[in-house]
Amino acid sequence: GMRGVLGETVIDFPVADNKTWAEAMRYTETYVAKWRKHPLITPAIAPHAPYTVSEAHLKEVRAFSDRTGATVVIHVSETRKEVEDISKQKGARPVEYLAALGFLSTRTIAAHTVHITEKEIGLLKEFGVGSVHNPQSNMKLASGVAPVPQMMKAGVALGLGTDGAASNNDLSMWEEMDTAAKLHKLNSNDPRVVTAEEALMLATSGGARALHLEKEIGSLETGKRADLVIVDLDALHQTPRYSIYSHLVYATKSSDVRTVVIEGRVVMRDRRLLTLDEELIKKKARALRERISRSIAFARPRPRRGLPPSGFVIAARGVDTMRD
Amino acid sequence: GMRGVLGETVIDFPVADNKTWAEAMRYTETYVAKWRKHPLITPAIAPHAPYTVSEAHLKEVRAFSDRTGATVVIHVSETRKEVEDISKQKGARPVEYLAALGFLSTRTIAAHTVHITEKEIGLLKEFGVGSVHNPQSNMKLASGVAPVPQMMKAGVALGLGTDGAASNNDLSMWEEMDTAAKLHKLNSNDPRVVTAEEALMLATSGGARALHLEKEIGSLETGKRADLVIVDLDALHQTPRYSIYSHLVYATKSSDVRTVVIEGRVVMRDRRLLTLDEELIKKKARALRERISRSIAFARPRPRRGLPPSGFVIAARGVDTMRD
Repeated sequence: GMRGVLGETVIDFPVADNKTWAEAMRYTETYVAKWRKHPLITPAIAPHAPYTVSEAHLKEVRAFSDRTGATVVIHVSETRKEVEDISKQKGARPVEYLAALGFLSTRTIAAHTVHITEKEIGLLKEFGVGSVHNPQSNMKLASGVAPVPQMMKAGVALGLGTDGAASNNDLSMWEEMDTAAKLHKLNSNDPRVVTAEEALMLATSGGARALHLEKEIGSLETGKRADLVIVDLDALHQTPRYSIYSHLVYATKSSDVRTVVIEGRVVMRDRRLLTLDEELIKKKARALRERISRSIAFARPRPRRGLPPSGFVIAARGVDTMRD
Repeated sequence: GMRGVLGETVIDFPVADNKTWAEAMRYTETYVAKWRKHPLITPAIAPHAPYTVSEAHLKEVRAFSDRTGATVVIHVSETRKEVEDISKQKGARPVEYLAALGFLSTRTIAAHTVHITEKEIGLLKEFGVGSVHNPQSNMKLASGVAPVPQMMKAGVALGLGTDGAASNNDLSMWEEMDTAAKLHKLNSNDPRVVTAEEALMLATSGGARALHLEKEIGSLETGKRADLVIVDLDALHQTPRYSIYSHLVYATKSSDVRTVVIEGRVVMRDRRLLTLDEELIKKKARALRERISRSIAFARPRPRRGLPPSGFVIAARGVDTMRD
């Protein structure tokens, strides 16, 4: 399997998995205990965001993390609205609020951190919080641009992520490197920021630091876990090659990855997955799509005037009328 | 071969191909006459930019285009500096200046058009100028963001391009669609602008309009040229599929293109190029790289302190020290 920091989401309102906060915390306790010794899975607790989890519950999560050693994953300052709401309700911006609450620690991972100030960057660094930058998701959702050059300069443990399929369909870390390098050049009005070498760092050793796993993964070194990809550099679109960093960030595609080794085990060889049944996965994904399309079709308003407000008619058109 | 609008660059200072303006114009005359009946190649004259070609020469280019029917390709308003310089020198912004000069026509293609006003958008529409948006290049060079939603709303003939390998290594139109859709959502602070369907349009029928070839190419219709790609939608990263537009723009990669038909002729089948020798191309590209690396190494300043200022030392490190 793949390596992952996997968080159980806890949130202040009932969701499908957990009807109450207490139920969610009980489940998370069992979940963290079950996986904490696993070589690939780092279990985490994932309080959704400062605006969906109360102060008392955020403090409870911090205590839980201190007691169990569990990583804490939280969305922070993804949107302007979140910052405005928290600032109004708590009298402080999200990172300031979380710091004052005693929530931040060297086990915290903050996703997004788009709308943060120099002071908040300082707090992330001070508390050893990992930050995960998701440029393509931030673009697609029109969230904004995270101050990546500033975070790098301040020495924040900064990694790169894709966010989920809903806001970044392909989940390609290769595109994420390319986009990160280009986006911050544009946003800084300076083509020298976030070099290809730095973008590759964000996706590898930077990511390991952001996940608080820098002693285990992120670079090829004696004593670290054997996680590596072998990239085919011989394709026509990869020729010629000048700087290897520019090449990997701006020219190499996910389809150029030939072999993948995780924890010393070859899981993909010559582009064939060795531990998963591709046809079965596709079949299951298509079956899930049917269920999702049907449920969305019923829940959606009429796609355009002239069509009757019948769920059935819209369901029949389900796939075609779904928009990005 | 591929279809292309190929422009011979003319510029007011001596370059490797042409020592003088007169020489460049004589060559372009022969070049346009030679290719104008070709089914795949649309010969064009490419005056570099408003800031590198004089008023008199721009007028000469327009007269040449009127006489020969040649398409005219020009860089317009790519950078802030260009707009500032032209505004200072000519008392008008670049598109206004070109319009006042009588340069613009329904054979003009303006690349970039990043820093343009609503008034200039109106001029592009009024004169039937095609505009080509190059989002990844504009990001990598920190040029700025073109007002794409505004140009689309005004009905400007707008297409999508990659720019050259120097500012956009991979030249992938699939990534360009993805980036265009995401960049304008971010820049407009509105996730509803430049939908996946519109991004696909910019890369196909919009591109054809921008090239003034909309009667020939850009859509699959009776009477148009048979240019088409067959895309493999069965791969794991393409499963499941909801909206075909979102899918093609946000999930499909260039490596998913299976077969390419140009002018009714299959030039790639099952990912194998049928008319080109890949190994020979790679060999030639690598030989050119050696020449380029050597010439750059000698021309570059010392890469870092501590190294001697010897061209030979830098040449030996040539490939490694090239930066993006």
